[in-house]
Amino acid sequence: MQKNLVAEFLGTFLLVFGGCGSAVLAAAFPDLGIGFAGVSLAFGLTVLTMAYAVGGVSGGHFNPAVSVGLAVAGRFPVGRLIPYIVVQVIGAIVAAALLYIVASGKAGFELGGFASNGYGEHSPGGYSLTSALVIEVALTLFFLIVILGSTHGRAPTGFAPLAIGLALTLIHLISIPVTNTSVNPARSTGQALFVGGWALQQLWLFWLAPIAGAALGGLVWKLLDKDD
Amino acid sequence: MQKNLVAEFLGTFLLVFGGCGSAVLAAAFPDLGIGFAGVSLAFGLTVLTMAYAVGGVSGGHFNPAVSVGLAVAGRFPVGRLIPYIVVQVIGAIVAAALLYIVASGKAGFELGGFASNGYGEHSPGGYSLTSALVIEVALTLFFLIVILGSTHGRAPTGFAPLAIGLALTLIHLISIPVTNTSVNPARSTGQALFVGGWALQQLWLFWLAPIAGAALGGLVWKLLDKDD
Amino acid sequence: MQKNLVAEFLGTFLLVFGGCGSAVLAAAFPDLGIGFAGVSLAFGLTVLTMAYAVGGVSGGHFNPAVSVGLAVAGRFPVGRLIPYIVVQVIGAIVAAALLYIVASGKAGFELGGFASNGYGEHSPGGYSLTSALVIEVALTLFFLIVILGSTHGRAPTGFAPLAIGLALTLIHLISIPVTNTSVNPARSTGQALFVGGWALQQLWLFWLAPIAGAALGGLVWKLLDKDD
Amino acid sequence: MQKNLVAEFLGTFLLVFGGCGSAVLAAAFPDLGIGFAGVSLAFGLTVLTMAYAVGGVSGGHFNPAVSVGLAVAGRFPVGRLIPYIVVQVIGAIVAAALLYIVASGKAGFELGGFASNGYGEHSPGGYSLTSALVIEVALTLFFLIVILGSTHGRAPTGFAPLAIGLALTLIHLISIPVTNTSVNPARSTGQALFVGGWALQQLWLFWLAPIAGAALGGLVWKLLDKDD
Repeated sequence: MQKNLVAEFLGTFLLVFGGCGSAVLAAAFPDLGIGFAGVSLAFGLTVLTMAYAVGGVSGGHFNPAVSVGLAVAGRFPVGRLIPYIVVQVIGAIVAAALLYIVASGKAGFELGGFASNGYGEHSPGGYSLTSALVIEVALTLFFLIVILGSTHGRAPTGFAPLAIGLALTLIHLISIPVTNTSVNPARSTGQALFVGGWALQQLWLFWLAPIAGAALGGLVWKLLDKDD
Repeated sequence: MQKNLVAEFLGTFLLVFGGCGSAVLAAAFPDLGIGFAGVSLAFGLTVLTMAYAVGGVSGGHFNPAVSVGLAVAGRFPVGRLIPYIVVQVIGAIVAAALLYIVASGKAGFELGGFASNGYGEHSPGGYSLTSALVIEVALTLFFLIVILGSTHGRAPTGFAPLAIGLALTLIHLISIPVTNTSVNPARSTGQALFVGGWALQQLWLFWLAPIAGAALGGLVWKLLDKDD
Repeated sequence: MQKNLVAEFLGTFLLVFGGCGSAVLAAAFPDLGIGFAGVSLAFGLTVLTMAYAVGGVSGGHFNPAVSVGLAVAGRFPVGRLIPYIVVQVIGAIVAAALLYIVASGKAGFELGGFASNGYGEHSPGGYSLTSALVIEVALTLFFLIVILGSTHGRAPTGFAPLAIGLALTLIHLISIPVTNTSVNPARSTGQALFVGGWALQQLWLFWLAPIAGAALGGLVWKLLDKDD
Repeated sequence: MQKNLVAEFLGTFLLVFGGCGSAVLAAAFPDLGIGFAGVSLAFGLTVLTMAYAVGGVSGGHFNPAVSVGLAVAGRFPVGRLIPYIVVQVIGAIVAAALLYIVASGKAGFELGGFASNGYGEHSPGGYSLTSALVIEVALTLFFLIVILGSTHGRAPTGFAPLAIGLALTLIHLISIPVTNTSVNPARSTGQALFVGGWALQQLWLFWLAPIAGAALGGLVWKLLDKDD
């Protein structure tokens, strides 16, 4: 058994079950709901907690874009990209399935957007394809800079999971209205499979933009990290 | 005197007095109430703060399911389970009693659900028994993985109370609408004794599911932790 | 100059200016206000940030009840209680004065409760004197346990300001509806002086209960800390 | 290439794109918006995360007032003030431009205040010039004390980015209603350039007050830090 793949499965599972779960189950609860701020906190805490728990086993990526960005920066072997990404996507799909079971156990359940990512008429706030593309690229780029910087030998030891988890919270605080926030193709894929239709048609953007942003982030970091 | 039992009493007391207290007193305050997000933060902070304060004395379980899961994982002696669980339940009951005294000192006080856990018609959002069972098992499983992972020698020193407390916040952000969130049989028992009736009839689930989830979490962790 | 007194002045100033300031200026802002949850976070962050900044200078009490509780536990010299408490109260009064200047610079300003603490008809949620007494004693007791435990040699190094600040956030998440949350006689005194009348008449409780709770917390901790 | 200037560019960019972005895109989203509390968290997390990521490269100022305050305290060479400030302002302007692109990609977009800082009739809550001046000076003063204290050799290692980021969250929790919170001339400048008119006319205050407060903070800290 490859323990790092189990860790990536578990971490991506919790990211989707916890992050999308909080959105589907708790965000819009009448009067007492947690809103976008609570969902933002939930997404961040899935990564914060699992990075402390199993970061030492797998590196704690839980996200194909993160694995790609780390590979571009030379901090993750390219040869392990495929198994990591496969396991992350499987974790996300299993999480979406379990969330479906929980969510549908309510009288009058309707699937709705099921926390899928979207743009144009499927953006929560009605933002265009361009807005979606720009913000997903930009925020994944910064996500990688925080990941690469806070895990660097120069940064204080032990704080990286805190910084990285809270970076994901920050990213959601900004961008849920635009795309429902992806920055993570696995997270987008799990939910889209259950929604089908438009969610699958728009899924390309949530692979393309996060991976492009992460690769750019890896390149920018290499610039910052290089010896003068 | 066994100091570890005093510490478990105090920690479980604060978990219930603080977590359920925030729900009963502050969640639905008109206009300014803290909502489910504030309650989630409060539950997490009870564990975060008391684990920093007395974690070194007792291990900082404050939860029968956690004690069981740690025992399954071989990190807590089985012979100490009974005294720990007894003291945790007593702490929860005393906290619920004190909370009753405070809450009832308001003109027009009605007991209501008193932050009890429930499913079906007693689920805050009307979720079924199956939904309740699945989410309580799944979230307690992950709670144990975070506890076992973040206190492992491989994880950064000192951050475990932060990760564990915020994991409990995360768990509440997801699942308050489903069961009012237990993952802790002691917390469920204290409140149910004051509500009686349905709360006592449904209490079995909030012993069964968290303990089953915690035991599963202990087993999954052993798999991850085993030498290859 | 006694630098520790300057540090206590600055810390208590920020606790009152920041905590009460967030309540007066931002809690009830139409639609976008921070509510009790935001105020709870603000109070906690005043202590978290100033304890990291000047905790090494003065110990970071910022609260007469904390100074008393530490003295009871044998962790602060009794002879320094009076100057600490005097400076803390002065810091709170100056902060309340500056907050008054800021808050009154708004057309149609009305002083209102000005974040004063109260019980009975002056409790935000209409809670009785007994409720107020019980919750202020209980929460200050736990505040001291967190302070004494997290600064103990057994606890992980460096995390105490985090645990203590977030304990104050937790305390507010629970008890703002009951008393507007004191657990700090200096904080209560500064605001009461500007409100006068009922706020001054009820001020005795917010000296008595926090100090009693803190002293009890110091005693409980001594029990936990004693060699067997 | 001067890596520290790149780091300051990136950090100030994220501070504005993330902080002002959360305000423009997410604060007032119907029903689920993050409100002032969410915006406060976002501003703080931009600094927390980037200070962990690139604090070791540039010191992590991301704010002309911070650079000035550090120089006054003797912790930053005066000769590097100009390049730091220039790069910070450029970072803020580029971030405001990118935010404009994202925000305008919504049908029916109106620029509105675009998260600009203001006083008098342009204060979110209608606070006077005096209120604005007092609160911006006072809060930047404390911001510098937290920065100087938490990065001091006496403070626990590694926690400064946490303390400093959360200090910025605290500052916003208090003062968004008064000035929309600046404490950072670069952040104010970027947004004002896009709003023009009143925002540019009032911009002087958001250079003057933060820099005055930061310089005072540097002086107060020198007093606290001096050998007796």
